[in-house]
Amino acid sequence: MSSKAYVSLLLIGTELTNGTIQDTHGRYIASRLTELGFTVTKILLASDDLSTTDDLRNLAACSDIVIVSGGLGPTSDDITREMLAALSGGSLDFKQDVWDDIAARFDVRKGQSNKRQAFVPEHFSTIQNTKGTAPGLKGTVGNTLLYALPGPPHEMRRMFDRAVVPDLVQSFHVETEEFLEATCFLLSESLLEDACGKFPRSGVSWGTRAGEGMIHLYLRGGMQQEREAFLGFLQEYFGKERLKNGSVDLPAYTVALFKDLEYTLSSAESCTGGLFSKLVTDIPGSSEVFPGGVVSYSAGTKAVYLHLDRSEIETHGVVSGETAAAMAQSVRVLSGSDIGISFTGIAGPGGGSTEIPVGTVWIGIAGHDGEIRTFPFRFKGSRDRIRRKAVAAGFLLLEIWVTEKKRLDSYRKWQYI
Amino acid sequence: MSSKAYVSLLLIGTELTNGTIQDTHGRYIASRLTELGFTVTKILLASDDLSTTDDLRNLAACSDIVIVSGGLGPTSDDITREMLAALSGGSLDFKQDVWDDIAARFDVRKGQSNKRQAFVPEHFSTIQNTKGTAPGLKGTVGNTLLYALPGPPHEMRRMFDRAVVPDLVQSFHVETEEFLEATCFLLSESLLEDACGKFPRSGVSWGTRAGEGMIHLYLRGGMQQEREAFLGFLQEYFGKERLKNGSVDLPAYTVALFKDLEYTLSSAESCTGGLFSKLVTDIPGSSEVFPGGVVSYSAGTKAVYLHLDRSEIETHGVVSGETAAAMAQSVRVLSGSDIGISFTGIAGPGGGSTEIPVGTVWIGIAGHDGEIRTFPFRFKGSRDRIRRKAVAAGFLLLEIWVTEKKRLDSYRKWQYI
Repeated sequence: MSSKAYVSLLLIGTELTNGTIQDTHGRYIASRLTELGFTVTKILLASDDLSTTDDLRNLAACSDIVIVSGGLGPTSDDITREMLAALSGGSLDFKQDVWDDIAARFDVRKGQSNKRQAFVPEHFSTIQNTKGTAPGLKGTVGNTLLYALPGPPHEMRRMFDRAVVPDLVQSFHVETEEFLEATCFLLSESLLEDACGKFPRSGVSWGTRAGEGMIHLYLRGGMQQEREAFLGFLQEYFGKERLKNGSVDLPAYTVALFKDLEYTLSSAESCTGGLFSKLVTDIPGSSEVFPGGVVSYSAGTKAVYLHLDRSEIETHGVVSGETAAAMAQSVRVLSGSDIGISFTGIAGPGGGSTEIPVGTVWIGIAGHDGEIRTFPFRFKGSRDRIRRKAVAAGFLLLEIWVTEKKRLDSYRKWQYI
Repeated sequence: MSSKAYVSLLLIGTELTNGTIQDTHGRYIASRLTELGFTVTKILLASDDLSTTDDLRNLAACSDIVIVSGGLGPTSDDITREMLAALSGGSLDFKQDVWDDIAARFDVRKGQSNKRQAFVPEHFSTIQNTKGTAPGLKGTVGNTLLYALPGPPHEMRRMFDRAVVPDLVQSFHVETEEFLEATCFLLSESLLEDACGKFPRSGVSWGTRAGEGMIHLYLRGGMQQEREAFLGFLQEYFGKERLKNGSVDLPAYTVALFKDLEYTLSSAESCTGGLFSKLVTDIPGSSEVFPGGVVSYSAGTKAVYLHLDRSEIETHGVVSGETAAAMAQSVRVLSGSDIGISFTGIAGPGGGSTEIPVGTVWIGIAGHDGEIRTFPFRFKGSRDRIRRKAVAAGFLLLEIWVTEKKRLDSYRKWQYI
């Protein structure tokens, strides 16, 4: 009975440590226990033949609960039963009733090796496995509660959900920690860290996690109002479009916004090469919003697809505000959509110059009101990162364009990210 | 210098132990090291705030090599540097040269918290991080070699591949098992498994690993000739374009092939929504091959972008061989490229019908010799998977088109994948 309960997991299987299969048990168990207020501190993946009682002892020493999965099979390298017996200092005994139960439910005549599965460590009880032959085990060593579950996913998950979770919820009265999550775009962890440090001292602590093209920010501790004030401070500091409340997928967010407003959108992409339209059309139902776009990678296709004047493109340069404006306006008119967006820049690694270095991207937006604006950026990183950042900037600009156009100048801060 | 070398991994991140994200580093590192003949015995996932020097000590005690990932960020809960210093019993010192290097490559003036990343444990050396601010670390404690790598996937992978692997291969003379790797497209693991079982008994064993849009096949044991005969059998069985020798990236492979042959390529995408052009333009230098493409998601944009007759599209249907042919030919002519490819289909989840169910995709190819062919497919899976399979089929068709056109009918086997 404590307000915090620490859990460790030991997942046994050589195929996990040699990379043959991807472990998914760890996340399955950890996310469920975290929801319930438990704190999972360690997840150890160990090979069949090299996992030892010491591993189990180390985990038990720092945990209120240890959950083992795997190593309960019928073969001689399945040694979880032996490890539990060694840890508890007890014997390992054949149980006729357990064997009768396995034999009644499975045709194990050919598999006398299954008899190994009817051995139970002293002081441990069994948990019935309705999906397979290996019963689960439950026992206490010192102050630590131990569960051993079978390794096959459907057996493990069923036993965890049906037997372990209800048992833990009844035994431990944990307090679930409240937190606030935000999703951050065109920001770095160190910029966030520095800004968080500027918020007046409070009971709120922060943590970040870098995702693909975004950073998750978690604010924990304090009262809900304090966490909200903290997020409000950061939104004020960076501009609210860059820090969105909750777990946000930017393309889905933008498509939903356009759907709500009944706006349509088309794109003319040069350096992003189709990434923008790929991300938009990843979203089921995006066809309501997005009639299409062009990927005009060469000056020639810019001219032909978009009916632009090639000599004019060459006068201003392919990577220029003028070209970005012409592309956005042209694709909007051709597609008959409300808003057109364009991307032209140098994603690298080649193609940069002193005047227009790698990372330079012009974004153009043209609206049905006839307004056309262009936005120059300088992004850092690899070809892939520059392309992703350009597209993220496009989504944020579109959001501001359709919701609060006077704030468009916010883009000036999204530089050198 | 031993014939066996044991490796442990310590992956630090609270988001790994609370189930927010799925760890993929463990499998990435473990499968590569296993290929190279190392034995990965333990993979420990630990939370930021509860991972301790003891964890590192326990892993070091049973390993020749420990690789740590994560905890090298600029924030105060990033404690890998401190743990390494504590384990080695040395000090943790600010290194001006490391800081100068970080500051020269990144605009970190605003991010003074990055200074933490210029602290190096005594007796450790740094490994340059070309993708991010945190340098890696390398040092020896007792008989154990330790590496610390940054946590973000692209930083970790690059440093592991470019710095750690060559270093380990040079330092440890492990007995590598010889094997043959192939990359398989438009195949499932179970189809591969069944076909492998049909090969006459040999000393060769097989294993598969599912990647993003591909499956890696490993043939191990036996003589090299036997492994080659095994792969030859599978290539004969499935068509050689679906099983490529080595580790192959399909878009890069196709772009290189087109470059060699000096062919240019353009695309007209409907259901794939820009995924094809995105993948092509991911490849640096693809502009030599790819002048551009159009994403014509609606019938209207198909007509306008591609100068097609809208009533004709509606007569044949948007998802039809006729429309695919017209799209491919039109984009080829508009772009002035040698070959045009088109994709039109139903990626789902909505939009399917009894006649044209979700998963139906027509691919069209038009060549500069005037030939136009269309290829109907039926793919299984989610929206994302259907789109990826369609694009993979497009790449394979293009390869056959430019190398051995008479084999184009192979596509008939790439169904219901």
